[in-house]
Amino acid sequence: MFEKVLIANRGEIAVRIIRACKELGIKTVAVYSEADRDSLHVKLADESVCIGPPSAAQSYLNIQNIIAAAKTKKADAIHPGYGFLAENAYFAEMCSTCGITFIGPSSHSVQIMGDKASAKAEMEKAGIPVVPGSGGVIEDEDHALSVASKIGYPVIIKATAGGGGRGMRLAQNPEELRKSVALARQEAEAAFGNPQIYLEKYIEEPRHVEIQILGDVHGNVIHLYERDCSIQRRHQKILEEAPSPAISPELRERMGSDAVKAARQVGYYSAGTVEFLLDRNGNYYFIEMNTRIQVEHGVTEMVTGIDLIKQQILIAAGEKLKFKQEDIKLCGHAIECRINAEDPLRNFVPTPGKVEFYHAPGGFGIRVDSAIYTGCEVSPYYDSMIAKVIAWAPTRQEAISRMKRALMEMQVDGIPTNIPFHLKIMDNAFFQRGEIYTNFIQRRLLG
Amino acid sequence: MFEKVLIANRGEIAVRIIRACKELGIKTVAVYSEADRDSLHVKLADESVCIGPPSAAQSYLNIQNIIAAAKTKKADAIHPGYGFLAENAYFAEMCSTCGITFIGPSSHSVQIMGDKASAKAEMEKAGIPVVPGSGGVIEDEDHALSVASKIGYPVIIKATAGGGGRGMRLAQNPEELRKSVALARQEAEAAFGNPQIYLEKYIEEPRHVEIQILGDVHGNVIHLYERDCSIQRRHQKILEEAPSPAISPELRERMGSDAVKAARQVGYYSAGTVEFLLDRNGNYYFIEMNTRIQVEHGVTEMVTGIDLIKQQILIAAGEKLKFKQEDIKLCGHAIECRINAEDPLRNFVPTPGKVEFYHAPGGFGIRVDSAIYTGCEVSPYYDSMIAKVIAWAPTRQEAISRMKRALMEMQVDGIPTNIPFHLKIMDNAFFQRGEIYTNFIQRRLLG
Repeated sequence: MFEKVLIANRGEIAVRIIRACKELGIKTVAVYSEADRDSLHVKLADESVCIGPPSAAQSYLNIQNIIAAAKTKKADAIHPGYGFLAENAYFAEMCSTCGITFIGPSSHSVQIMGDKASAKAEMEKAGIPVVPGSGGVIEDEDHALSVASKIGYPVIIKATAGGGGRGMRLAQNPEELRKSVALARQEAEAAFGNPQIYLEKYIEEPRHVEIQILGDVHGNVIHLYERDCSIQRRHQKILEEAPSPAISPELRERMGSDAVKAARQVGYYSAGTVEFLLDRNGNYYFIEMNTRIQVEHGVTEMVTGIDLIKQQILIAAGEKLKFKQEDIKLCGHAIECRINAEDPLRNFVPTPGKVEFYHAPGGFGIRVDSAIYTGCEVSPYYDSMIAKVIAWAPTRQEAISRMKRALMEMQVDGIPTNIPFHLKIMDNAFFQRGEIYTNFIQRRLLG
Repeated sequence: MFEKVLIANRGEIAVRIIRACKELGIKTVAVYSEADRDSLHVKLADESVCIGPPSAAQSYLNIQNIIAAAKTKKADAIHPGYGFLAENAYFAEMCSTCGITFIGPSSHSVQIMGDKASAKAEMEKAGIPVVPGSGGVIEDEDHALSVASKIGYPVIIKATAGGGGRGMRLAQNPEELRKSVALARQEAEAAFGNPQIYLEKYIEEPRHVEIQILGDVHGNVIHLYERDCSIQRRHQKILEEAPSPAISPELRERMGSDAVKAARQVGYYSAGTVEFLLDRNGNYYFIEMNTRIQVEHGVTEMVTGIDLIKQQILIAAGEKLKFKQEDIKLCGHAIECRINAEDPLRNFVPTPGKVEFYHAPGGFGIRVDSAIYTGCEVSPYYDSMIAKVIAWAPTRQEAISRMKRALMEMQVDGIPTNIPFHLKIMDNAFFQRGEIYTNFIQRRLLG
């Protein structure tokens, strides 16, 4: 087992990983930017290293400084968390070149799945349903128009290097499509340093259902059922739940075994997520695979009892999975609300600042993953998520009631948050009935 | 269902009950003494009423003021929590006389089980093993000596009206017994307003294993397995776990079904606990039944998924139990540490004062039940417990690691607590192996 792990991340996920390491008896090294000197992850780690100025490009994305910190502190392994370098195949490669274990999949899997077009091609090879589309990079307007006329409108343009909903553009007809191609390429270049785009049929009012998988380096792969992440604002998830209120046991088995097939196709190990869109007729389509731990992994932990971060670490150390598919049991229902420092009434604009007073909700069935504390600063430099509140209960209905009382109990003074917005979701009749599609917020809450 | 419940308690258990009511959509009324004006339970309840000065006798034990508060606020029901009036048969009776539902068992059950001697007699009738003893009240020294010579030394003197370990005296031989009888009567009179005492054989180095039961008013009774509460300081529990690391599935079934038998014997409904001593040879003896929710109920909730406070409320409203015995499944392991404002190095003397900064531990498998917050005052008037930290994990070993990291993470600045003492327990090899008996702290930790 590793003696010391460096966590190449910040915020709640850095704290989450430190917790798992402590429970496994592994020493931890935190890294931090100059803006994060007083952050909770720095306080909780055994050691810490400043890796640069506030700008992420110069700190949390600074591969050289991070590897140097790991070498200096004699860390055996690096956990990248999510975001930043988590899906950077070059970083994974560099770790291994420097004799440091990257806690995640092989750089080969990261690379194939990181390129949306090659990922889709691999999935088609494995016989997994994919959204009809260009099947590769779109070269220009004419190419886009010809693909769209074949698969039918509406279509959606996506950045090959994109993810998390960024860099997408919807086109209802040829005119809109013509306008969008050049713009989308510019946006992709600006956001991801890569202008390549591709085209897909736009599935209307789908659910977003994703399957958690775990694989070891010995070729064993299992799934841990699904999460329903249909509730999104501006293509970004803000509430996730497990299991999905929409799928039958038969569909669950089918999607699960397709996800395992997907992972096997690319020789996948570590934790990963195979994301699908589910249409109104029970058809599902592969959209992408996330080759990292996800923000919403906690709801799966709550309904299966399995600690996914510990599993990542054990797998990276070469251990065999200790469970078979039939050992994984679903128990109860879990919902996660992402608490963001943002103003839902002003188009979700971030609201960084000082947390004057913080009181976490508690009691039966409530889990809080957070890096904030009374007196801390929420930085304007990074993501606006400040906490994840997860409610577990035997039934979905009870989990909703429990989440509602936890949200009412939670106190974050000094900065506006989206807690009132989540309370509105809890009270929404469509949400309560589980009638949630990716347009839920626009249609049922803001509409 | 009730529309409004008054909570006749304070601290973490009042908060716990308010949470359950909120999740059931029931309005809440808090009561508070003048010392508790700024308490969390007052802040979280929908309404609140001051019921008297700091002294518990004049506030939380003031039946008249509490019933008047319930009447004024039009509460349908009163939840007594634990301690204070929770096992006061007269209070339960008064509630019903005033048309208010007492959320607990019948005053008849409270009365029989509250008198330790009559409780033992009832259990013997039901065929449940009891500790050999006087079988009734001890009148004087000679009576005590004659009983002791029959059952053999060591013996223990207990107060008929006692509980929670208070008012007990051990005698190893006739000399010690002779000295103790009058003293024990005086102490019992002072502590419980009732000088009656009884005598029992002293079981050496036993485990304390108790069975959680639930019964409804329709005669259905089930058990929710055991808790091991062998770790006690000065006869008071400070760490509890479920399941017990010491009992076999066969013994678990036997003790569970005896507990159900015990409850049936006294027509019991609501939540209750049948407490046993377990000796080194696997013999168990009934010691008492607690006719209320217990401090340590949370560990049972964590391994069964069932919310015991909600069950109490549903049962009090006349509902039938929704599960049968075979529906109750044990899942994983849970450990609770009672965090007290006390100094373990100075004989556990209470250390009340202002909490300058509070940060609760969080993350997967951690539950915190508490009423403290940054800036609150821990009052010298009441119990010194300020929080309960519960760690759940698939195995006992993982639960211990998780508890350890949670305790290290928890921050309570301004007052000394027993957190370092709990950390010593986590690191103790006897504890880790589950070799824990009621003398663990004295023999393995302080000895």
